[in-house]
Amino acid sequence: MRVLVVGATGTIGKAVADVLAERGDDVVRASRRGDHAVDIADPASIRALFAKVGWVDAVVSCGGSAKMGALETLTDADFAASIANKLMGQVNLVRFGVAHVRDEGAFLLTAGIFSQRPPAGVPAAAMVNGALESFARAASKDLPRRIRLVTVSPPLIHETAVAMGLPSNGALSARDNAQRYADLLHGDQTGQVVYT
Amino acid sequence: MRVLVVGATGTIGKAVADVLAERGDDVVRASRRGDHAVDIADPASIRALFAKVGWVDAVVSCGGSAKMGALETLTDADFAASIANKLMGQVNLVRFGVAHVRDEGAFLLTAGIFSQRPPAGVPAAAMVNGALESFARAASKDLPRRIRLVTVSPPLIHETAVAMGLPSNGALSARDNAQRYADLLHGDQTGQVVYT
Repeated sequence: MRVLVVGATGTIGKAVADVLAERGDDVVRASRRGDHAVDIADPASIRALFAKVGWVDAVVSCGGSAKMGALETLTDADFAASIANKLMGQVNLVRFGVAHVRDEGAFLLTAGIFSQRPPAGVPAAAMVNGALESFARAASKDLPRRIRLVTVSPPLIHETAVAMGLPSNGALSARDNAQRYADLLHGDQTGQVVYT
Repeated sequence: MRVLVVGATGTIGKAVADVLAERGDDVVRASRRGDHAVDIADPASIRALFAKVGWVDAVVSCGGSAKMGALETLTDADFAASIANKLMGQVNLVRFGVAHVRDEGAFLLTAGIFSQRPPAGVPAAAMVNGALESFARAASKDLPRRIRLVTVSPPLIHETAVAMGLPSNGALSARDNAQRYADLLHGDQTGQVVYT
């Protein structure tokens, strides 16, 4: 499969791109910088990416950013940025990508477990993650040509926990998480939300 | 309790306001027109409403609009309007309303069952509903002074089904739905998503 991985330099995305490549997929790596640069908060940038990349069998979106912070500290701009980047960035990858994905292709989007089990201090991130989960359930029913759509909600990843100085004992590694993405990409699920 | 009901002229909101008033609450009815006019898509309008209404014990938000339509027909503007109105309108009722809600007060927001069980043709509405569900789980943990926050996700209401010419057999009536809102308002739950 020819697979466009968006966010391919992040903790989750790099591992996903590496695992897919090891499994034999032809991986096109897109991120904020590099040969396939994209700013997913900018619809025109997403359209330009697809125009450059051409046909793919699948699009795997590994992130986007949402603002952390407690309700009283988040600004209008924090909510708007979280929506424009992690939420609408990924929604628009589907909207604008459909025309570039082959029959029976797939989209995987990335939300996160804060949708269901948030700690304090993450209302914008939780909101965006919940939106992506319900979007997958609904939009999967509108996709043509048996194209599939799954939202993956990972837990806190081990490498991220270590980098942030948070408890990492027993946390899922980026590589084990990526294996789940690869299984889903080559599976037949659609409309589901998968907690890795 | 002094309760601000936002969206008090809609199918859900009018029934909620009526039931609360019958149970003895002091209900302030806000909607797009009338004495307490508010456009929840406009943050300044929400701030003006709270400045006029003053202290309340609770805020019950009964709606906001989201765009129906299949993925390929929804425009950038449709997604933006759904986010600005039903999603951020209700999020901002909480953000800007906290300072006007008394200790141990409550917010009830309205999402909808499309978050979990969408038919085809509702990805924007489903997305917004899922966002509101996860927002309640997360933001409830950040609220001060034991203020509670619950998101209610009603099914298709009988009166709405009839008005839209959809199958209404066995659908929940607006009044029965409103009794659940009233129970929740006078209960002690917080952070939950309640499917009526």
